[in-house]
Amino acid sequence: MSARQIEVRDALGLAESALVASGASRESAASTASALVSAEIDGQAAHGLSRVASYSLLVKSGKVNGTARPVAKRVAPAVIRINAGNGFAYPAIDLAIGHLAPLAREMGIAAAGIHDSGHFGQAGRHVERLAETGLVAMAFANTPRAMAFHGGRRAMMGTNPIAFAAPLADRAPLVIDLALSVAARGKIIAARKAGKAIPAGWAVDAHGAPTTDPAAALQGALLPIGDAKGGALALMIEILSAALVGGAFGWEASSFFDAEGGPPRVGQLLLAFFPAAFSGPAWPLRMQDLAIAIAGEAPARLPGDRRLAARARAAASGIEIPDALYAELRALAGSVAA
Amino acid sequence: MSARQIEVRDALGLAESALVASGASRESAASTASALVSAEIDGQAAHGLSRVASYSLLVKSGKVNGTARPVAKRVAPAVIRINAGNGFAYPAIDLAIGHLAPLAREMGIAAAGIHDSGHFGQAGRHVERLAETGLVAMAFANTPRAMAFHGGRRAMMGTNPIAFAAPLADRAPLVIDLALSVAARGKIIAARKAGKAIPAGWAVDAHGAPTTDPAAALQGALLPIGDAKGGALALMIEILSAALVGGAFGWEASSFFDAEGGPPRVGQLLLAFFPAAFSGPAWPLRMQDLAIAIAGEAPARLPGDRRLAARARAAASGIEIPDALYAELRALAGSVAA
Repeated sequence: MSARQIEVRDALGLAESALVASGASRESAASTASALVSAEIDGQAAHGLSRVASYSLLVKSGKVNGTARPVAKRVAPAVIRINAGNGFAYPAIDLAIGHLAPLAREMGIAAAGIHDSGHFGQAGRHVERLAETGLVAMAFANTPRAMAFHGGRRAMMGTNPIAFAAPLADRAPLVIDLALSVAARGKIIAARKAGKAIPAGWAVDAHGAPTTDPAAALQGALLPIGDAKGGALALMIEILSAALVGGAFGWEASSFFDAEGGPPRVGQLLLAFFPAAFSGPAWPLRMQDLAIAIAGEAPARLPGDRRLAARARAAASGIEIPDALYAELRALAGSVAA
Repeated sequence: MSARQIEVRDALGLAESALVASGASRESAASTASALVSAEIDGQAAHGLSRVASYSLLVKSGKVNGTARPVAKRVAPAVIRINAGNGFAYPAIDLAIGHLAPLAREMGIAAAGIHDSGHFGQAGRHVERLAETGLVAMAFANTPRAMAFHGGRRAMMGTNPIAFAAPLADRAPLVIDLALSVAARGKIIAARKAGKAIPAGWAVDAHGAPTTDPAAALQGALLPIGDAKGGALALMIEILSAALVGGAFGWEASSFFDAEGGPPRVGQLLLAFFPAAFSGPAWPLRMQDLAIAIAGEAPARLPGDRRLAARARAAASGIEIPDALYAELRALAGSVAA
């Protein structure tokens, strides 16, 4: 597969133009392109430029409202409710971050619940942006159904990512970003395309029996980490990001990928903590103690180190993307000037 | 092992008297006895009456200050900071719940950080008490070191429980309560006592090699659920319940069981969400939709059903405890009138 290096600004321009060409507003396209390129820079290709084509399709079909403007309302002193209007999630996330940064400083803790939303991509980046302002942050989101309730057989809950970030002195924030399935659905789709078996322990078939056949797995359900424990955490995230904020549950949500059905209407919950309110001047020192403790346990390292290395490479020499993806972006961007 | 049924009030009286006989204040003993008996009622014997003897020892040795009174301070509009004073955790938890219930209603979300604390037992019960007032609640706590950082070898982080509760109409709240290790340390201690091997995948020895020998496991480290993912979640909980609130990290904390060293000084973080602020009147209906969806996937069931069955049995016919434990409690309670 031949590949090429492109500059970050060119990637942004192509992604934004492609989305605008599909009917998105300049504002929504810019926010979305920024999130996709950030993911690409960080080595999270599954949430990166490969999404532009399907995102464009979603706008063209009307499943995602490309001109939606998210609306924020302060529903309680420390809570913001955001209606993403069935547009892309990213403008709503931007709005949430803009509100949470000052509100968490004022209140000590603040929450933003986003409903009628969609795929929110690289969750770690959203919380990292809050951590870059000195806050500790968490994000929860549900996704279309992929995992069974513990004891059940059919896919009902999403893979339900959880992300966490905390600032560190003299370096980028510590970022944790994971989904509760053992393996990402994308890896199973890739195995099916490649005609390869998947490892045992990733999924069950439609009858609930363990399978290593990716096609059977995609008809069945992904397995959560830690059996009942991961299943319980996924359920917690359904409650936080669907029931609590007013989003659709995993079993109600349509696909993030194709143009079938109505909008996914999933939800997201962001929390921001102002650490100085919780523990005063001790906080940065304690995070330093933590970094030292981890360094002392090498080869253990701070989570996110691989992401930072990818980011440094992109800053130095741009992003490497497959030629086919580049051609796809060029074709989608078409006549729209970036 | 012969056993006997005892009334809940007798269990409370014995536990409280034992703690008072060891030097705890009546107030601290009552709060602690209530939490231990609640755990026993719910079938969580590891956090129940079996702890009375070691708790008494901790007070006698001065490692736990049995007469400490937790002090709460509102450090930000939506944040309470509680100094547990190196007493038992339960009076501090009671204080946190008392503050959070009204504060979350007022602010939409509220947090309580507890520092200089100790073993907080059945985490699910603490969040359930908040859910009984109509709130959604989460609790995070760290514990003395038991698990390695991902990529490391030595036990550094705690098993780090996370608990979650949400109210349901016409039944007890949905409660999730789990630690991030594959297996509880208590099960490994029990296997060692019984001279039995432990399953593969529970632990590594002091050299980081997989082991089924419980003695080697206790010298080594427990494994987290989901490898890197569970390790990352445990790290997140170290940050939330130690760095953020000002508690000791897992690798700094002394044992909850024996009288060695100073107080454990661990931390806990409780969050409470007022769901009506987040999504208004839709909330109870959405939780009903969830309960219906789970019922439709039987044999899947709501988490906590086993606990409720145990609770119903205790209400009908008291608690069954081993004769040896009963004798131990009687001896500890000694001459103190309940």
